[in-house]
Amino acid sequence: MSDISANAPSDLDTLTTTPERRRRSGGRMGERSRPNGGSRYRNLVNRLAKTELVDEDALDAIHDASLTILEEIGMDIMLPEARALMKAAGADVREGSERVRFGRELIMDLLQSVPRGFTLHARNPERNVQIGGNNLVFAQIASAPFVADREGGRRAGNQEDFRRLVKLAQCYDVIHTTGGYPVEPIDIHASVRHLDCLSDMVKLTDKAFHCYSLGKQRNIDALEIARIGRGISIEQMEAEPSLFTIINSSSPLRLDGPMLQGIIEMSSRGQVVVMTPFTLAGAMAPVTIAGAVVQQNAEALCGIAFTQMVKKGAPVIYGGFTSNVDMKSGAPAFGTPEYMKAVIVGGQLARRYGIPYRTSNTNAANTLDAQAAYESAFSLWALIQGGGNFIMHSAGWTEGGLTASFEKFILDVDMLQMVAEFLTPLDVSPDALALDAVREVGPGGHFFGTAHTLARYESAFYSPILSDWRNFETWTEAGRPTTYDHANRVFKEKLASYERPALDPAIEEELDAFVAKRKAEGGVATDF
Amino acid sequence: MSDISANAPSDLDTLTTTPERRRRSGGRMGERSRPNGGSRYRNLVNRLAKTELVDEDALDAIHDASLTILEEIGMDIMLPEARALMKAAGADVREGSERVRFGRELIMDLLQSVPRGFTLHARNPERNVQIGGNNLVFAQIASAPFVADREGGRRAGNQEDFRRLVKLAQCYDVIHTTGGYPVEPIDIHASVRHLDCLSDMVKLTDKAFHCYSLGKQRNIDALEIARIGRGISIEQMEAEPSLFTIINSSSPLRLDGPMLQGIIEMSSRGQVVVMTPFTLAGAMAPVTIAGAVVQQNAEALCGIAFTQMVKKGAPVIYGGFTSNVDMKSGAPAFGTPEYMKAVIVGGQLARRYGIPYRTSNTNAANTLDAQAAYESAFSLWALIQGGGNFIMHSAGWTEGGLTASFEKFILDVDMLQMVAEFLTPLDVSPDALALDAVREVGPGGHFFGTAHTLARYESAFYSPILSDWRNFETWTEAGRPTTYDHANRVFKEKLASYERPALDPAIEEELDAFVAKRKAEGGVATDF
Repeated sequence: MSDISANAPSDLDTLTTTPERRRRSGGRMGERSRPNGGSRYRNLVNRLAKTELVDEDALDAIHDASLTILEEIGMDIMLPEARALMKAAGADVREGSERVRFGRELIMDLLQSVPRGFTLHARNPERNVQIGGNNLVFAQIASAPFVADREGGRRAGNQEDFRRLVKLAQCYDVIHTTGGYPVEPIDIHASVRHLDCLSDMVKLTDKAFHCYSLGKQRNIDALEIARIGRGISIEQMEAEPSLFTIINSSSPLRLDGPMLQGIIEMSSRGQVVVMTPFTLAGAMAPVTIAGAVVQQNAEALCGIAFTQMVKKGAPVIYGGFTSNVDMKSGAPAFGTPEYMKAVIVGGQLARRYGIPYRTSNTNAANTLDAQAAYESAFSLWALIQGGGNFIMHSAGWTEGGLTASFEKFILDVDMLQMVAEFLTPLDVSPDALALDAVREVGPGGHFFGTAHTLARYESAFYSPILSDWRNFETWTEAGRPTTYDHANRVFKEKLASYERPALDPAIEEELDAFVAKRKAEGGVATDF
Repeated sequence: MSDISANAPSDLDTLTTTPERRRRSGGRMGERSRPNGGSRYRNLVNRLAKTELVDEDALDAIHDASLTILEEIGMDIMLPEARALMKAAGADVREGSERVRFGRELIMDLLQSVPRGFTLHARNPERNVQIGGNNLVFAQIASAPFVADREGGRRAGNQEDFRRLVKLAQCYDVIHTTGGYPVEPIDIHASVRHLDCLSDMVKLTDKAFHCYSLGKQRNIDALEIARIGRGISIEQMEAEPSLFTIINSSSPLRLDGPMLQGIIEMSSRGQVVVMTPFTLAGAMAPVTIAGAVVQQNAEALCGIAFTQMVKKGAPVIYGGFTSNVDMKSGAPAFGTPEYMKAVIVGGQLARRYGIPYRTSNTNAANTLDAQAAYESAFSLWALIQGGGNFIMHSAGWTEGGLTASFEKFILDVDMLQMVAEFLTPLDVSPDALALDAVREVGPGGHFFGTAHTLARYESAFYSPILSDWRNFETWTEAGRPTTYDHANRVFKEKLASYERPALDPAIEEELDAFVAKRKAEGGVATDF
């Protein structure tokens, strides 16, 4: 692209590598810009003005209503240790009850220490990602129980497919981190699954990764695997966020034990919590989008405030995941107009609080048809205009998250790359304005052979992975392939070209020894 | 939708029904808001802040470069009558040359009389559309040589398919006007094709329509058919724009005879000119998007200025149609990141000049696959964020405009309706914030049975035409239909339900008599 140079180097490196404390005045959020050659889609920045779907008064009303919920109704906090911390912090905790209420001043005070942005560290420093400000990070699909490709059909998740999806995430620079497990490998026993999976994350990719908060020991194992992968000390790890966890509230208005424990383990060690209520309007949240966002905001603020009770300055991300249901069936719907509105208002709230914003690339399609594409494209529209910073499920999500699709992964990568190109500033240099080329060609000519064209045509435009721009006749001779056919071919080609990223043999040895030791100990109990 | 009422009636009716002259100071552009029951998708308004892709300096540079083109290089004006008008207006016209140059002051002076907005009148006043400001009008596909549906395959255009596509346009409120001929019916002789087609437009729809500028007589016949359809006098017709024509420059930098004649015939009678250069970067325009937009702007301003030479205050729309080509094959590409940028910068230019903005819903797919959806969705994203007012090819366009697809028409209607829902203001009334419902349900409950949900669930969310949200098992039992399958079913069902809109028998009689008379006269010569 001729316009890479339009990203001024002055945008680089203004983010510190440790969480940056909130500064109430001054200090524009640092951004990383387009990189040098060979990694065009790393360090994406969204400089577009974000969409304000509701005005300041309405945003105030949503904010106020969510604080009223926390103050008057409260949340069920299903872990005594968490309630004790909350009580110590000044929340209204009553003996014999899980219900905890939070004064609005308490919540707002706790938000003061939330970092506006931070670096999430990968074992390869070139894969570090900047979270917050105008930075844009895409994480792969996570947590699907099923996996699908055209030949193999839809099947339960397994280790081989898990590994293939993780490898695909490594193959594309536009996928900045893996998410959780792209598919749940149920052929690995639950007691040791996290050990095998996280070990794979370190070996098969050099990108940052996620750990599930499913009990304290899993968090601790994950922290150790991330530390070993980076080859650093515990102290350095605690100063440099290197692992993230998704914390979901049990909507409405509950935080369960493993999730609260996850916050305690991760926040206390300076690791990243992504606090994400899953508030389906009409099911676990009010049927109105505004009401569902109010509830989302209450639950998100509660969890975010708790991270700061655990450790002031702990890195945390505001997660929004409000969508609607199909009122005919109760099934979740995604990529809808209602989803778009919720995503954008969620972004307004996160920016109001100065907290990085997580959202998702969603759809509810059962196959790689037009629906899969338009629901995802509408999601992308909303999350870009809404200022999403950290995008979960960026590639591979189908069926409302039930299935990780290999073909959808490629379709999403293509769309993410289009978004990245769209966000690249337009070159408006005198050379790009092309007055001389127009003078040369003049009325009635064409630009195919001009020096201006010849100097640029090979890299002038984004070259899509999947779009088939052949004319109808040529396309017909080729057997009329659809996007699904192309995506099916591409994911297999890409997997065949996969190369394992370099890993220090000493680190690999330490990692293997740790996993072997923990397996010998029996992993973790599975009776949770 | 519960939030219809959020559109204050005070937004209504602030547009005059005749072209409103530019007001340099004050006077917010009138908007029509969501209507009363039964026509939810008429009179759409896009209140979102528009995206500024380039800053003011860059916009100035584009503007200046385009005026330099008109001043130094000029355009080939391939009609003596037009050159004479231009000479009289002060352009640099030289004997024996088609080349005409335009001083920048001349162009800017002429833009002063362009209306910021106007009403395009239909024969049914309820179908009148507001052009300009924040108003958003969707016109059907136009001008495809081929037509396709799944059963019939891809075939040359014909009258039956023409009529079926026009009927579909009538069936959906979100299609506000027809465009040109949705498909070219080549089984009607070219000498009388416009008579049959425009007569059908009047009879089969009650919406405003388009006439091709392919020689003076066709314009005159179209004007008469539109006048008869509305049942009004010539004087009223000239005061009320009731017909539009697309004027394409022959890029680079030429306006041919029929197009110039079309401007003369239409503008002199107060009808709508949509001045649209088709500037493919790397082919008929510079390979850089900024350069292609510079050339687009030069050609558009030239044609727009000419409308004002013909008649000050004539309604005109700034058309942008810049995209890139596939540099491997030279084939046009659409819905690309480059297309998005061009659409948005085009909108910035049109707003700078205070002229309504036309753009298009494009894609280059050969079938109704994911590509068709994502390229169109990316186009829609750009044209909404870019502030498009008048959207050509809104529904049915495939293959870069070569084919009108029945199934794609339905897919597009669904996406347009989603856009319309997205643009509907979010209800943030106290009732929508739903504090009472949250109080009622409390932590750990669900909202399915609450009074708040029951009162709203039937109309709370957009009900899509095509999205298949059934679970995988139910969807599998149903034969795993794709979006293509659903669209194929829906267009046939919709056609079966088509009802011809009421038409005064006296008008129909006058129309038939006019067409018969003109046919008896031989229509128009076809040796142009």
